Amino acid sequence: MNNEQIVLAERPEGLPGDDVFRYEDVETREPGRDEMVIESVYISVDPYMRGRMNDAKSYAKPFELDKPIESHIVGRVTESNNDDFAEGDVVTGVLPWKKFNTVSEDAVNKVPSTDVPLHLYLSTLGMPGQTAYGGLLNIGKPQEGETVVVSAASGAVGSVVGQIAKIKGARVVGIAGGTEKVDYLTETLGLDAGVDYKKDDFAERLAEAVPDGIDVYFENVGGTVSDEVFNHLNTFARVPVCGAISSYNSKEDNGPRVQQKLIKSQALMQGFLVAQFKDDFKDASEQLAQWVQEGKVHSEVTIAEGFDRLPEAFRNLFTGDNFGKQVVKVSDSLD
Amino acid sequence: MNNEQIVLAERPEGLPGDDVFRYEDVETREPGRDEMVIESVYISVDPYMRGRMNDAKSYAKPFELDKPIESHIVGRVTESNNDDFAEGDVVTGVLPWKKFNTVSEDAVNKVPSTDVPLHLYLSTLGMPGQTAYGGLLNIGKPQEGETVVVSAASGAVGSVVGQIAKIKGARVVGIAGGTEKVDYLTETLGLDAGVDYKKDDFAERLAEAVPDGIDVYFENVGGTVSDEVFNHLNTFARVPVCGAISSYNSKEDNGPRVQQKLIKSQALMQGFLVAQFKDDFKDASEQLAQWVQEGKVHSEVTIAEGFDRLPEAFRNLFTGDNFGKQVVKVSDSLD
Repeated sequence: MNNEQIVLAERPEGLPGDDVFRYEDVETREPGRDEMVIESVYISVDPYMRGRMNDAKSYAKPFELDKPIESHIVGRVTESNNDDFAEGDVVTGVLPWKKFNTVSEDAVNKVPSTDVPLHLYLSTLGMPGQTAYGGLLNIGKPQEGETVVVSAASGAVGSVVGQIAKIKGARVVGIAGGTEKVDYLTETLGLDAGVDYKKDDFAERLAEAVPDGIDVYFENVGGTVSDEVFNHLNTFARVPVCGAISSYNSKEDNGPRVQQKLIKSQALMQGFLVAQFKDDFKDASEQLAQWVQEGKVHSEVTIAEGFDRLPEAFRNLFTGDNFGKQVVKVSDSLD
Repeated sequence: MNNEQIVLAERPEGLPGDDVFRYEDVETREPGRDEMVIESVYISVDPYMRGRMNDAKSYAKPFELDKPIESHIVGRVTESNNDDFAEGDVVTGVLPWKKFNTVSEDAVNKVPSTDVPLHLYLSTLGMPGQTAYGGLLNIGKPQEGETVVVSAASGAVGSVVGQIAKIKGARVVGIAGGTEKVDYLTETLGLDAGVDYKKDDFAERLAEAVPDGIDVYFENVGGTVSDEVFNHLNTFARVPVCGAISSYNSKEDNGPRVQQKLIKSQALMQGFLVAQFKDDFKDASEQLAQWVQEGKVHSEVTIAEGFDRLPEAFRNLFTGDNFGKQVVKVSDSLD
């Protein structure tokens, strides 16, 4: 059967250009005993993948050169030798960027429900939702009446953070880039204020938006935006450090050191990876699904169509050209 | 009665010069009902006082212009209208830089024992010891076999941190400036290794000293020394942020941002002030006194003699010209 894959052709410097990705025609391996074939339907692009493109030792294994890039995928079983999976089942897993993957049952999980838009399993009901839930509630610990600030607030993780913080009774201020996204924060997500980091008066607007200071800052972006946020930390503030997307493509990442600010505010800053919260994944999934069904947690998605749009969609994460969760739809077979 | 005080004459920029301090002849106020007069014997100079010399809102109230500077003092009661205090009693408290202070009993505490060198109540048995104990054990939480790194390791706080970490079974690496101090770390304090941050090969020596990475970094100095330490944080490392003495006299304090390093290591950084641990002060005091008596915790002190040496002694904290705790002896009356 004809198949196609995208491999890492070279390690990028800065924003990954087209030379970083190479398309290859390959054969689909026949499924062995207990194996199955999964057709990729939605493929996720996520900021953390930029780190895996480097050679440096990090928390996730670097992608290998000349091997397919991998990410979270929602797919459909097209052929199965496994008694627990039937043709047509919808599954998720971290899989190579191929149109078809031949896998064992260890590689995938059936989705709990097909009554929701399936790309949600790559955002609110998937890894980004777990990241938001685990980092905010375990490290940020927002209390009723406290002020929570979240950066990349319209993004896949940030939008869930902001909405959970509202459910918990906090005053929530979101930071995003551009009028459309900032309006979305208050009008659709129900946050208390939105601040546009692309505007010249960002520092003043942020100060106005947090008259009582900041108790929780959910860090997604790093860089100069966060430098400014750190000037407003309250005593015993908590800063879950989830991402620093503004710096992932930079060689240099210099700014004001945080030590004196942390001492002054007796604040806590904690880096985390979602796997840290794996014991809570099941409870978190159920809670998030309930909030989605009750209409309490909204999700925005940008869907690029076509396997050949993957590199561009990945780059959009860093240029801010996506809105909400960025996915790529590579097959119509679940429409 | 003739008295003398040192007031803050102007707010310093950078290292406080002589113009920042003004000597004034004053009268000693007669003690009222329940009051007493305390003769200053040992006056402490501490890095955190630099922050109080600025006008900026911080955790401690700024010193007022033209009012006496304050710090921890060990003194002797010379006159008392209070039934609980008698002439000759030894007390500690945060008091104005005067040779004699007239105070109520709220301002001072009697020392628990006069069998130890009394300046220890300004170091290991005082605020620096509490700072080391509280920050290391509550935030750093060193476990047996883990690697603990402490900067300013021969200083009043750092030397206690290193020795407690050894008592707790950790492998301890101290960072200090100059051969004499570095030798002291291993030879007198019993640390496993010392690294000299003033040497050109600091980065390489540090790397050699922490072959298994760093589980706890007790942060006293900030700046480029700490930038280097952050490259070695292990998964789930803890960084109690106690001080950033290298930056207190600088307007600019820029360096590599820590966000990506914290994410990669899932590390925690927490600023603290010693008052946070006040519920434990009594237990900590008793434990520290026991360790001192058992010879398990050594203390080094640099004693400058004379009230007029206070400004110079304060500056020594930032130039590294002191060794261990820096105090100023302003009276022989407890010899």
